[in-house]
Amino acid sequence: MNFDRELENKLKETESIIKKYLPEEKGWAKTVMEAMNYSVNVGGKRLRPMLMAETYRLFGGADRVIEPFMAAIEMIHTYSLVHDDLPAMDNDEYRRGRQTTWVVYGDAMAILAGDGLLNYAFETALKSFGMPDSDADHKARALSILAEKAGIYGMIGGQTADIEAENIGDQVTQEHLLFIHEHKTAALIQAAMMTGAVLAGAGDEQIHLVEKAAYEIGIAFQIQDDILDVTSSLETLGKPVGSDAKNQKTTYVSLKGVEEASQEQREMSDHAIKLLKSLEDEGYQNVFLIELIQSLITRVK
Amino acid sequence: MNFDRELENKLKETESIIKKYLPEEKGWAKTVMEAMNYSVNVGGKRLRPMLMAETYRLFGGADRVIEPFMAAIEMIHTYSLVHDDLPAMDNDEYRRGRQTTWVVYGDAMAILAGDGLLNYAFETALKSFGMPDSDADHKARALSILAEKAGIYGMIGGQTADIEAENIGDQVTQEHLLFIHEHKTAALIQAAMMTGAVLAGAGDEQIHLVEKAAYEIGIAFQIQDDILDVTSSLETLGKPVGSDAKNQKTTYVSLKGVEEASQEQREMSDHAIKLLKSLEDEGYQNVFLIELIQSLITRVK
Repeated sequence: MNFDRELENKLKETESIIKKYLPEEKGWAKTVMEAMNYSVNVGGKRLRPMLMAETYRLFGGADRVIEPFMAAIEMIHTYSLVHDDLPAMDNDEYRRGRQTTWVVYGDAMAILAGDGLLNYAFETALKSFGMPDSDADHKARALSILAEKAGIYGMIGGQTADIEAENIGDQVTQEHLLFIHEHKTAALIQAAMMTGAVLAGAGDEQIHLVEKAAYEIGIAFQIQDDILDVTSSLETLGKPVGSDAKNQKTTYVSLKGVEEASQEQREMSDHAIKLLKSLEDEGYQNVFLIELIQSLITRVK
Repeated sequence: MNFDRELENKLKETESIIKKYLPEEKGWAKTVMEAMNYSVNVGGKRLRPMLMAETYRLFGGADRVIEPFMAAIEMIHTYSLVHDDLPAMDNDEYRRGRQTTWVVYGDAMAILAGDGLLNYAFETALKSFGMPDSDADHKARALSILAEKAGIYGMIGGQTADIEAENIGDQVTQEHLLFIHEHKTAALIQAAMMTGAVLAGAGDEQIHLVEKAAYEIGIAFQIQDDILDVTSSLETLGKPVGSDAKNQKTTYVSLKGVEEASQEQREMSDHAIKLLKSLEDEGYQNVFLIELIQSLITRVK
């Protein structure tokens, strides 16, 4: 099957898994459920649950225990966008061409919807304990990784460092910037791929390899974002370009220039793919996963 | 030992357990950790972790596995206050005589600190899986109860219904109000007591009994709050009284009058205590727990 066709099928599958775990909108607290579902249903690449499922398959996972975790990580990703878009944060009114949650439901309900999604992510992942097919230790470990990478030692830590960076403008160092990218972007990619590996029963060395590869994929993904903001156009990207420069935001590109940033981005992604391909010697192969990663890093939008 | 003295000792013990699990303030994301710790250290009655520990003891629990859960529920309670106090929500500048988190750290950091506390609550409770003393099924079940009672089917659901109630003023029915109290207040009391019971290995019938008693304790606690807002004074309460009437907030007292509300409050608390005392026939007794509950419900501040 060709990649685009396969991607489309997998995306549909992922969408239906996520939908299955969203709350039913009813009762006195209906509005927060509507706001949560609205936020998730705005769409997106569903990158994290897909990377999770494909890493799970890479290590021979074949059960449905992965499904609540797939839904959970998308809820976590979504809540972070809902809170990020708030007037008190980035004050964004549109995302993917639709009004952001706070514009539709108000600030208070958007805060609650974000809280609701984060909490519901854990409720959802915990449903895996009711499923027979996987051992409890794997589930507990996967949950711990998910929680850690989403929290103050992961994504929330990255958001914090990002807000601090905005206050110091061009004083931001490369070390600071790498911390932001590692935590704000790479941590959830790591969570996705590591939980997939853990739930499939991968060994410690394999999980460590996945953590390293996912780090490089996350950073490369972020640098690509920054490059596109300089080199792409509104038509291709579907959102205004040049916003980083306009906001005087320090990025990999502003620090190193497009050429050197592209070079580093390529090196990192090549290395990540090399790491994952090294698993073929142990009999672990997932062609689609490699293609998916390549498509993310070379994407033009 | 007399009750006040014992309460003081238990409170100290609880404080030191909570402190032990708070994050160390360091690194690029230091500010969010400071804001989290500031929020928790503002203090409070530490009611939920104490009820949890005492219910755990009631059913013979004697291990340290309860400690991460005690810290976790206080983090959840605290995050809900941090987000509640935000300008976009209740816009409160003071809590327990100290400036609220957003006043000290700004709105954006307060949102992140709330997110951080909620996420860290799960990270903390998940640390129980690294402790040998308790079975994994109990921990997974306790986690699921905690997550459910904190989320859209619990506390967040109650917050949502409360915000909706503010928009409809005196149209709020008794059914709507009971839903708010049950979810916004009683759900976390239930989570505290039920997780205590589950972790101690209580049976399904006992857990169900605890859920019912905790419901009544939670509602009685809330009605007492509403009564004090009418009958107490600024000096006794340490915060302005009459705020419900001023805000035209529908409460149990505004619906039924002080006398009938007090009567119902007493009936509920008496019944909750009767339920817990009925466990003495099975050999489960915790005199301090009963005294603690009585003190909460008859409190004058």
